[in-house]
Amino acid sequence: MSHLLKDELAVVNVGIEAFVESVRLQGKSVWHVEWQPPGDGQAGLAWQLAQLLGDPADPESAGSRIDRANDTATARMLAAQPRLVDVALHAHEVWPDMDRMLLHAGAPVPWERMCPPMRGAMIGAALYERWAASPEEAEALLGRGEIRFAQCHDRNAVGPMSGVISQSMPLFVVKNGTHGNTAYSNFSEGIGRVLRFGAYSPQVLEQLRWIENVLAPAVKAAVARAHDGIDLKTIQSQALLMGDEVHSRNAAATALFFMSVAPALAASDFDRAGVAAALAFIAANSQFFLNLSMAASKATMDAAHGVEHSSIVTAIARNGVTTAIRVSGLGKRWFEAPSDTPVGLYFPGFKAADANPDLGDSAICETAGFGGLSLAASPALVKLVGGTVAQAIGYSREMAHVAWTRNPAMSLPNLEFAGAPAGIDVRKVVDTGIRPVLTTGIAHREAGIGQIGAGIVRAPLGCFTQALAALAESLGIP
Amino acid sequence: MSHLLKDELAVVNVGIEAFVESVRLQGKSVWHVEWQPPGDGQAGLAWQLAQLLGDPADPESAGSRIDRANDTATARMLAAQPRLVDVALHAHEVWPDMDRMLLHAGAPVPWERMCPPMRGAMIGAALYERWAASPEEAEALLGRGEIRFAQCHDRNAVGPMSGVISQSMPLFVVKNGTHGNTAYSNFSEGIGRVLRFGAYSPQVLEQLRWIENVLAPAVKAAVARAHDGIDLKTIQSQALLMGDEVHSRNAAATALFFMSVAPALAASDFDRAGVAAALAFIAANSQFFLNLSMAASKATMDAAHGVEHSSIVTAIARNGVTTAIRVSGLGKRWFEAPSDTPVGLYFPGFKAADANPDLGDSAICETAGFGGLSLAASPALVKLVGGTVAQAIGYSREMAHVAWTRNPAMSLPNLEFAGAPAGIDVRKVVDTGIRPVLTTGIAHREAGIGQIGAGIVRAPLGCFTQALAALAESLGIP
Repeated sequence: MSHLLKDELAVVNVGIEAFVESVRLQGKSVWHVEWQPPGDGQAGLAWQLAQLLGDPADPESAGSRIDRANDTATARMLAAQPRLVDVALHAHEVWPDMDRMLLHAGAPVPWERMCPPMRGAMIGAALYERWAASPEEAEALLGRGEIRFAQCHDRNAVGPMSGVISQSMPLFVVKNGTHGNTAYSNFSEGIGRVLRFGAYSPQVLEQLRWIENVLAPAVKAAVARAHDGIDLKTIQSQALLMGDEVHSRNAAATALFFMSVAPALAASDFDRAGVAAALAFIAANSQFFLNLSMAASKATMDAAHGVEHSSIVTAIARNGVTTAIRVSGLGKRWFEAPSDTPVGLYFPGFKAADANPDLGDSAICETAGFGGLSLAASPALVKLVGGTVAQAIGYSREMAHVAWTRNPAMSLPNLEFAGAPAGIDVRKVVDTGIRPVLTTGIAHREAGIGQIGAGIVRAPLGCFTQALAALAESLGIP
Repeated sequence: MSHLLKDELAVVNVGIEAFVESVRLQGKSVWHVEWQPPGDGQAGLAWQLAQLLGDPADPESAGSRIDRANDTATARMLAAQPRLVDVALHAHEVWPDMDRMLLHAGAPVPWERMCPPMRGAMIGAALYERWAASPEEAEALLGRGEIRFAQCHDRNAVGPMSGVISQSMPLFVVKNGTHGNTAYSNFSEGIGRVLRFGAYSPQVLEQLRWIENVLAPAVKAAVARAHDGIDLKTIQSQALLMGDEVHSRNAAATALFFMSVAPALAASDFDRAGVAAALAFIAANSQFFLNLSMAASKATMDAAHGVEHSSIVTAIARNGVTTAIRVSGLGKRWFEAPSDTPVGLYFPGFKAADANPDLGDSAICETAGFGGLSLAASPALVKLVGGTVAQAIGYSREMAHVAWTRNPAMSLPNLEFAGAPAGIDVRKVVDTGIRPVLTTGIAHREAGIGQIGAGIVRAPLGCFTQALAALAESLGIP
C-alpha cells in the first residue's frame, strides 16, 4: 500500500472483488487483497479442514495422525533411488493380458467421451498392432467396445499426452532401489506428428516400429552394460542446476542421459548403423528424457502411496477431459474435476482456441517435486511459456506453501540452492486455495496435429476438495 | 543510507578509508563510499584518459576515433562464427618449426622465472617428446636453453594453465567462418595429475600418448563427418542457458559437444573399442569443452584484434608470474603486471598459501564475454567458489560498466535474458577502477599436484593503465 498517500481516505477490500469497482466509482482509492475463506467457501469443508489440520498438541488428533503419515510418505519420496534397470522390448512381457487392450493417461474415460487426440492415439495403436487394417476399421472396433481400455497408472506406468501403450510397444523399466518397487513408461517418439498427440499416418507407425526394433534394443543393450542401471535421480538433480525443471524442459537431462548410455552403446555388439541412428534420434530430441523423468517420478511416488491417513498427493493425471489426483492414504480412488486449458505461448499459426484441455500423465513430475514446483530452476522454460524469471522463482516460492517438505537432493540455484518443494498436501491446497502449478505442452484439440505450444496450467481445486472430504470420511469426521 | 536516522549527525566518507575509523572513534555514524579518482590516482593518466574518452560532439576527437574503432572491433566479435573444423593430429603439421620448441601460456617468461607448475609441464613435454630420458635430463636441457620457448597466443593458439604445447600434441582447429581466421588449442587431459598443472609421471605421459593416438583421431573422424564442422558458438550460447559460463563451468557445453560428435563417431569406421574409450573419456570430464571454448574465444577475439585505435582488450593471459593483456589497436605488445592469487574455495587438505598465482590462457574466455562477464549464468559455479547467486548476478552487472557492448547471441537468463557484456574497454577499466573478473581453477604452487580449488580473480589494474598510456602515445597525446 506504499503508493497510497498517508492522509488519503482509502479502502482495503478483502475477498470479493465486485466491491472494488463501486468504491473506485466514488473516486476513492481501494486496495484489493485476493483472499477466500479456507475450504473453497464451503462451510462444511472448512469445518472438516479444521479437524484435519488438527491440534498439534494432541498426538491423537486427526491432524497429528495425518502429519505423522505425511512424514512417512515424504520420507519415502526423499529416500527413493529410481534407476533405469532395463528395457522391456514389448509391453506384453510385463503385462501378459495386453491383447486387445490399450492403456491411456489419466483416470478412466469411455471411448465416447475421449478427446480427439486420445481417440486418434487409440486408432493409431490399433493400426500399429495390426488389429485393424484401416483407420475406419480401427474406429469401428473401438466404437463397438472390442478393445478394452485400462489406465497406465493402474499398472505402475505413466505416459505423456494420450499416454497410449499397446502390447508391442517397448517400455522403460525403472526400479526404486530403496523401496523395491518398479515403474514403467513408454518411449519418446520425438516431436511433430506423433502417436501421443493422436497422429496415425504410415510415417508415424513406421517410426513406432523403428523404436520397437532398433531404438529400444539399443538402449536395452546399453543399460545391460551399465553397472546396476542408470541413476535417474542424479540426472534429475544435476539437470535442476542446468536450467531444466525435468518436466517441460529436459535439455540438460537428455544430454546427461545421452552421455551415460553412449559409451556403453558404442562398446556393445549392436550393429553400428543402429547405434548411430539411436544416438542421433536421442540427440535430436531434447525432451527424450521426459518419459524417464516421469517413470522415475512414478517409481518415487508409488513408494509414497498407501500410507494410511497421509494427505500427500501421489499422482496428478489428465485424460484430456478431467484432471484427477490420487492421495497416499486414499487408495486407488481418483478425485476428478474438469481440466483447465493451459495458458502459454503458441507456435506460429495457432491460438488458444485450438488447444485441447490439459492432457497426460506427465504431472506425475509435479507430485515428485519437479515441473511447476521447480520452476525457479528453469528461466529458459519460463521464457518459452511467456513469463519472467521473477515469475519462475515466484512459482516455486508459492508451491512451498502447499508442499509438506523440501527435497535436499533437488536444489534450486535461484532460491540459493534451497531444496525443491516436495509432497503436495491436500489440506494445504484446500486451506490456502493455492492450486498446484503444472508445466505442460499444449496439444491441438484435433487428433494428430500435435504440440501447438507450451504453457502453465493449475490443477483444479475440485480434485482437492473432494479428496479432503474423503480423507475426513476415512477418519470418521462428518 | 536508509539505516541512518534522519536527525542523526552523519558523515559520508568518499575515497580514502582511513578517515572512517577516526569518525567512528568519536561515536559518530559514518557511511563509506568506495571511490578513487579515475586514472588510478595518477594525474597524468587521468588527463590522458580524459582525452581518450574525448568529446563525443567532435568526430575528430581521439575519443570519437576510439569509439568508432571499438564499434568495428566489437562488431567483428559479435559476427564471429567459430566452428571446430578439424583436428590436427600433431602440432608440427600446423607449425613445422616446432622441433625443440615448447609453447606456453601468457606473455614471455624465461625458464629461471617460470612458476613450478609451468616448469613441471616443460619437463613433462620434453619427456613426452623423448628429447630427454629422465626428468633430470629434461631439466638440464631446459636450464641450458636448448629448448626454445614461444607463446601460444603468438600462434593463434591458447592453452589452459601452463598451456604447454609440443610438436607431437594434437590440436583442435577452429575456424571463424565470418572473418576466415583460424585458432587452435590443445586437448583437455582430464582432471587430477595432468601435464598442464606440471605433472610428468609415466601415467601422465601414457595418457598424453592415448590422447594423441586414440582420442584425437576419433574426434577428427567425427568432425570429418559433420557438415561444415561443429558450431561452437551455438554450444556456448545454449550452455549459458544451462548453468555454464563456459570458462570454469562447462558441464552443459561438454554434454552438448558430446551429443554433437557421438552419433558421427559411432557411425565412423574407427575401431569400436577406441570409440567407446573416447566417448567415456569425454563423458567423465565436465571441463572437456573448456579448451574448445577457449579456441572459439580466440578465433573470435583474433578477428577483433588489429583495429587501429581500438581500446578493446583482445587477450588476457597469465604465465603464473604476470597477467598480461593485448589490446586491439596496440599490436602484439603485452601489457603486464604481477598476477593476483585467486580467492575461492579449496579442495579438502589445501589452503590459500598453497595456491600458485593466477595461471593460463583461459581468460581469453572473458575477453569474448564469457567467464566472469557471464557469471550471472552460473549459480552452480558461484556455489563452487564460495559465493551467492546475488553475487553472481552482481558480477555480470558490474562487468557491463567496463564492456563496450552486449552480445545478443549470448543471453543471460538471470538478467532477464539480456546479452552478456562483451568487449572490455581499457578506458572504462581505468575510468571506473573496476577490474575485470576472471573465473579460474586454482593450481598448486608446486609442480604436478594439480588443481586444488576454484575461484575468482581480478586482472591487475596495472595492465590497463599501461595500455591506456600506450594508446595515448599512439594517438599523439602526451
